[in-house]
Amino acid sequence: MPSPAPETATLLIHCPDKPGLVHDVTGFIASHHGNIIDLQQHIDAGENTFFMRLEWSMDGFLLDRTEVDPRFSTLGRRHQMKWRLSFSADRRRIALFVTKENHCLYDLLARHESGDLGIDIPVIISNHETLRPAAERFGIKFAPFPMTRENRLEQEAAQIALLRDLRIDTVVLARYMQIVSPALIDEFSNRILNIHHSFLPAFVGAKPYHQAHERGVKIIGATSHYVTAELDQGPIIHQDVMRVSHEDTVADLVRLGRDLEKSVLAKALWCHVNDKVLVYKNKTIVFG
Amino acid sequence: MPSPAPETATLLIHCPDKPGLVHDVTGFIASHHGNIIDLQQHIDAGENTFFMRLEWSMDGFLLDRTEVDPRFSTLGRRHQMKWRLSFSADRRRIALFVTKENHCLYDLLARHESGDLGIDIPVIISNHETLRPAAERFGIKFAPFPMTRENRLEQEAAQIALLRDLRIDTVVLARYMQIVSPALIDEFSNRILNIHHSFLPAFVGAKPYHQAHERGVKIIGATSHYVTAELDQGPIIHQDVMRVSHEDTVADLVRLGRDLEKSVLAKALWCHVNDKVLVYKNKTIVFG
Amino acid sequence: MPSPAPETATLLIHCPDKPGLVHDVTGFIASHHGNIIDLQQHIDAGENTFFMRLEWSMDGFLLDRTEVDPRFSTLGRRHQMKWRLSFSADRRRIALFVTKENHCLYDLLARHESGDLGIDIPVIISNHETLRPAAERFGIKFAPFPMTRENRLEQEAAQIALLRDLRIDTVVLARYMQIVSPALIDEFSNRILNIHHSFLPAFVGAKPYHQAHERGVKIIGATSHYVTAELDQGPIIHQDVMRVSHEDTVADLVRLGRDLEKSVLAKALWCHVNDKVLVYKNKTIVFG
Amino acid sequence: MPSPAPETATLLIHCPDKPGLVHDVTGFIASHHGNIIDLQQHIDAGENTFFMRLEWSMDGFLLDRTEVDPRFSTLGRRHQMKWRLSFSADRRRIALFVTKENHCLYDLLARHESGDLGIDIPVIISNHETLRPAAERFGIKFAPFPMTRENRLEQEAAQIALLRDLRIDTVVLARYMQIVSPALIDEFSNRILNIHHSFLPAFVGAKPYHQAHERGVKIIGATSHYVTAELDQGPIIHQDVMRVSHEDTVADLVRLGRDLEKSVLAKALWCHVNDKVLVYKNKTIVFG
Repeated sequence: MPSPAPETATLLIHCPDKPGLVHDVTGFIASHHGNIIDLQQHIDAGENTFFMRLEWSMDGFLLDRTEVDPRFSTLGRRHQMKWRLSFSADRRRIALFVTKENHCLYDLLARHESGDLGIDIPVIISNHETLRPAAERFGIKFAPFPMTRENRLEQEAAQIALLRDLRIDTVVLARYMQIVSPALIDEFSNRILNIHHSFLPAFVGAKPYHQAHERGVKIIGATSHYVTAELDQGPIIHQDVMRVSHEDTVADLVRLGRDLEKSVLAKALWCHVNDKVLVYKNKTIVFG
Repeated sequence: MPSPAPETATLLIHCPDKPGLVHDVTGFIASHHGNIIDLQQHIDAGENTFFMRLEWSMDGFLLDRTEVDPRFSTLGRRHQMKWRLSFSADRRRIALFVTKENHCLYDLLARHESGDLGIDIPVIISNHETLRPAAERFGIKFAPFPMTRENRLEQEAAQIALLRDLRIDTVVLARYMQIVSPALIDEFSNRILNIHHSFLPAFVGAKPYHQAHERGVKIIGATSHYVTAELDQGPIIHQDVMRVSHEDTVADLVRLGRDLEKSVLAKALWCHVNDKVLVYKNKTIVFG
Repeated sequence: MPSPAPETATLLIHCPDKPGLVHDVTGFIASHHGNIIDLQQHIDAGENTFFMRLEWSMDGFLLDRTEVDPRFSTLGRRHQMKWRLSFSADRRRIALFVTKENHCLYDLLARHESGDLGIDIPVIISNHETLRPAAERFGIKFAPFPMTRENRLEQEAAQIALLRDLRIDTVVLARYMQIVSPALIDEFSNRILNIHHSFLPAFVGAKPYHQAHERGVKIIGATSHYVTAELDQGPIIHQDVMRVSHEDTVADLVRLGRDLEKSVLAKALWCHVNDKVLVYKNKTIVFG
Repeated sequence: MPSPAPETATLLIHCPDKPGLVHDVTGFIASHHGNIIDLQQHIDAGENTFFMRLEWSMDGFLLDRTEVDPRFSTLGRRHQMKWRLSFSADRRRIALFVTKENHCLYDLLARHESGDLGIDIPVIISNHETLRPAAERFGIKFAPFPMTRENRLEQEAAQIALLRDLRIDTVVLARYMQIVSPALIDEFSNRILNIHHSFLPAFVGAKPYHQAHERGVKIIGATSHYVTAELDQGPIIHQDVMRVSHEDTVADLVRLGRDLEKSVLAKALWCHVNDKVLVYKNKTIVFG
């Protein structure tokens, strides 16, 4: 694992646009001797809304971690801001949900082991036993929640209890072939990432590679998005595509598409845990 | 304009699959001293159907152009083949349909002038006068057909009469902002190419860039397809995409997308006029 | 041509990095009632250098166009900044240099006609007569400078005189098959754009498609860069690539590559004339 | 693991081009009641050389596996063919060579476990102990060969002995940070795959991401090629690229590039083990 980078703080902000916002926010940082590492802003003229990502070094910053949010709130409230503050030292605690396919799981575990993601993975949750050996190989707790029509509500409640118990921050559906419960979506709003194996909004729902083959598209895709109540309609975080041809059968698309699925999900998760993603009205601002 | 390549003949074939088809077809060529330049075949196992593209040199071939089809038909009928025979010496006669946007038009005219497409363009048809100067710059007849609710049927009939009169082989809708008539679609079955400014089947219909912006996709696309009776549902010939971000307004998508539209349409037309495309059950086989 | 956007001013800045730079610069804008439209900054930690692009509306700004630079200079000098100030109302005057190939030329002329580039093109310069009709079709002055070993120095001097006379801001080598003179490079430092038909630094120099075919690469590319004294070694502005295969002959690569060349050059020019590009130590910062 | 596909045989052929080759070869198959599954041919007009890939079902074929090659040789010799015959039932035995980086290794092991590659991996060889746990997790023999200046020749000989002993067919250098010995290259001609972390021929040799960053390229790449005596000069099998920007440090390129490296190496290996690759004069024909 690479040596840890120096601690930083990150603010994700949005508010009604007006002149002077960047000056005010950077003034807050400068007045406490903060050194800005990354500043990105975006104005949606149609929405008259200002978006900003600000990352600064905590090294030499005059405020303690616990003081930052209270002190910033005066400024934030004056501009009707909504903001989220995070610290790089707080490693995100991620639960992976899987079913039977191993490609996204192994991909995330390998990235995790090499330290690329900077996360903790306290648990892998599944509705099947298939991937228990994969979890055990990497020394991660495997929690099976087999689902039947009868036990579903109970199992979903038990899942949420476990996630709370493990202080999970974010849920990643790494090819989890179940609809997640409204209660889970509520509790982890904009903190459940899914990977859908199509270029959304094309081919919503089941068997997208079959749909793509049937339609005769020349390019297939994968989409990672936050899960919302409406199936495959949540804010899109990242997408990628690859070229296919008439030679490719559905089985070929399934095989080829795995490469897209794993890289797209991993990239979306990387953006999420590095506080690059801001959700606004069912769309994302993904700062580069 | 580059010097003309030697004359070739091309057969596009499909039929029920069975052993020996390639051997039989290549036997026909070999027995008349033909030299194969390109042979591609594809088997759709699900459909149990055999597809083939065969191009051979007419130089030294023992049959005259007029004799090829009659002689091949014995073999073709024995295997229940459907086939299309064409000769490179027969330049395709293309009518371009445009409205007000010039990017696809200029792109095709520039390719035409440099000889890349190997086509004739006897006429540019439009429902507006806007692009008359563009046509005139390149010395191509400009035929305006302004459409009103009252004159539509009459104008559509006049268009078809003109296309017949000019012995047009293929119609290219190069950002033509009108629904074409069922009569035209019937007459030019699988010979009308359209460019749709989205990654179909996402964002069918009007204002696809607005739809894409609204949905917050991270990639936009363009699709060239043959026109069928159902809007934006015809067989896809070629697609391409590009990455966009939250920074891009609808106006940016419109501007950026033009590059996709013109290259995708030009590539589809190139495949079409070089007899690379075979349509089967609302999908295309595009031989490389 | 679309209606003109409201006038903006743009500052491109770089200087040694230190805390408070964004705050100071945005303070300058805020104190004169400027409304920031785009702010992007980048810190090169290795170089300890700060880079910034700032665009603000001149609508309601308290300083006149002529006052901005003098007033900013106090701040700029305090931070050892190098900066470039430009106004959207000042349309760039571009000279296109061509030889015989028409694809980049027509592509730029079509974009110019549709108003996408927001430039003036007072002259097309060539060492051949081939593309005179293309220039004349678009009503642009065509200035031929045929080059021989004997007249070269004289012709180059005459070119520069013409460029000065026409108050040309930027030179675009749109497939100009001549080495440009050191005097021209000096006079238009970081204001001569070239398109090289390879993915630099692969295949420097002559006949890159032949080199690519010989090496058997599976992807070809095109690169637009600023011209410096060393051939094909200047700062890269934009690059793009496409997949090819063993089927593609050198002639195919030439044909296919044209699409890359024209879109890459046009994108680079768009970035350049919209003040998105900052050159630092033979590399570019291209603000998105 | 998916159920095994029916057994097929594959011929990869090249020879001087002349009329009738496809007819003759398909005649051989037809005369023994073989059903062709895939037939691809390519003619290099410049080299006057004919290339072909032919795959047919062994189900119902009148010749035994051991009879195919002897019987075909009459035809092959008549046309001065060079050919390679393989059977899908013969699983390739692959040795993976690694050093310290785990991303390509885990990626290949995950694909192996899911059955995608259809190979056996009898051994993982390394010059370091770092990845022993990774090998052991997947139950694969780990053979360390630490290299010093003194023991190099001896270790290389021992490696080859081990590869022979394990009847290894193909060696994959999955980020193996050692130059392999001429003896190994000789013994496994066109059967050693390497992944180089640049878009070859750009950035040959050490630290390609540093070179790419220094040059300021806007796109990075990865290349899988067969290893020959000349460093990074072997026949290219597959390449891919991704867009980067001035924001990306060398560390970012290293991190981002891993995704390319693993997918490009895996794709190249898939083509290799499925007999899609034919090497001719330091280039590859990769049948689709």
